[in-house]
Amino acid sequence: MSGLFITLEGGEGAGKSTQAVLLAEALLARGRKVLRTREPGGSPGAETLRTLLLEGNHALGLRAEVMVHFASRLDHVENTIRPALDAGMVVVCDRFYDSTLAYQGYGLGQGDPGCLSFIDRLIGLVGLAPDLTLLLDLPRDLALARLRQRGTRSDRYERLDEAFHQRVAGGFHEIARQAGTRVVTIPATGSTQQVHEVMLHEVEQRLPA
Amino acid sequence: MSGLFITLEGGEGAGKSTQAVLLAEALLARGRKVLRTREPGGSPGAETLRTLLLEGNHALGLRAEVMVHFASRLDHVENTIRPALDAGMVVVCDRFYDSTLAYQGYGLGQGDPGCLSFIDRLIGLVGLAPDLTLLLDLPRDLALARLRQRGTRSDRYERLDEAFHQRVAGGFHEIARQAGTRVVTIPATGSTQQVHEVMLHEVEQRLPA
Repeated sequence: MSGLFITLEGGEGAGKSTQAVLLAEALLARGRKVLRTREPGGSPGAETLRTLLLEGNHALGLRAEVMVHFASRLDHVENTIRPALDAGMVVVCDRFYDSTLAYQGYGLGQGDPGCLSFIDRLIGLVGLAPDLTLLLDLPRDLALARLRQRGTRSDRYERLDEAFHQRVAGGFHEIARQAGTRVVTIPATGSTQQVHEVMLHEVEQRLPA
Repeated sequence: MSGLFITLEGGEGAGKSTQAVLLAEALLARGRKVLRTREPGGSPGAETLRTLLLEGNHALGLRAEVMVHFASRLDHVENTIRPALDAGMVVVCDRFYDSTLAYQGYGLGQGDPGCLSFIDRLIGLVGLAPDLTLLLDLPRDLALARLRQRGTRSDRYERLDEAFHQRVAGGFHEIARQAGTRVVTIPATGSTQQVHEVMLHEVEQRLPA
C-alpha cells in the first residue's frame, strides 16, 4: 500500500466538509491522485445503511447501532478506501471510526461503561487505521453560530442537548490524547484559508515521495 | 440468570419452525414460561434489518453483511432474549449465530479464509451462548422435497446452487463437532412427532428445577 489515508474529525460546524474539498484540491494541484469520501456511506453497500444511521429512527440499541456503523465502515474500507490506497491515492475521508468513539462511545454511551472497549474491539476488526487524523477543534458556541448561519436542517445529533455535545468534544480530546502522533488537533477558529494552510502543512510532512 | 436458552439450527426444510412451535407448546404444558423467537429479527430494532438481510439486495460485502447480522443479533439479545432469561423463561430461538457461521462462514465465505475467525470474534462480542442447540439434520434431497411441497416463495439462500447447500450442511456438522455438548444433532428424517419427542427429551434433561 503506497497511498496515504487521511481522516477529518470534529463536531458539526467545525468546517470538515469545506476543508476536505480544499485539501483535496490542493493535493490534486500538487499532482497527487486523490479520493475524497465520507462516512457514514462511501460505497454502494454502505450507502444502504446511511439513512438508517443518520436519521436514527431504527429502534436499535446503542451497541447494535455501533455495529451497523462498523458494518458500513467495513464495506467502505473494502470497496472504496483500500482499493484507492492500493492504487497509490491519497484518501481524504470526512469522519471515520473516531466519530463512532466520540458520538456513540463518549456522547451516547455514558450509561454503558463497556461501550468504549466494545468499540475498540470493532476497530480491531476493521484492519485499517488512518495514517493521519486531522481533528478540527472549534469551541461549541462558534460552531453553533456557524450552523445557524448555514441554516441546513439539523440531524439527530444536532438536536441533542448541550451536555451531549460537551461529552463528544471531550471525547475527541481524549481520543487525540491517547492516539499519539496519528491525531493532530487543528484549531478551527481562524479563517477557512488559515485553517486550510495548517492542515496542508501537516499533510505535506506525511506525503510519500 | 435462571432461564434456559435453546436454539434450533439446520438447513431450510428441516422442520425448525414447526418443531419450535411444538417444543414451546410442550414446555408451556409443563408449566414453564416460554418465549419463542427467531432470527433475523426478534426485536423491533432487529426487525428493521431483517428485510435487508433476507432479501440480500444491499450490495454489502460478505464481512459487512456478517456484521449487520450480528448488529441485529445484539439488539435481539439485549431487548428480547436476555430479559426473558433473566425472568426465568425458557427461550426457544429459531436460528442464532451458528446459522451465520454455516451460511456466511462456510457457505458464502469459501473465498475469504479469515471469515470464520472474523465471525468467532463477533460471537465473542455477543456475550451470550445458547445453553443447548438442537441441530435438525435432514439429507438435502428430503429437505428439497419438503420445500417443494410447502410451495412458499424461496428466499435468497434457497436460490443458491447445490454446492452452496452442501457447504452449509458440512458447516453445521463441523460446528456440532467443535461445540461439544452444547450442540445435539437430531436426525430429522422421522415423523414430526418422532422428532419432537427426541428434542423434548434433550431439553428436559437440561431444564432447571
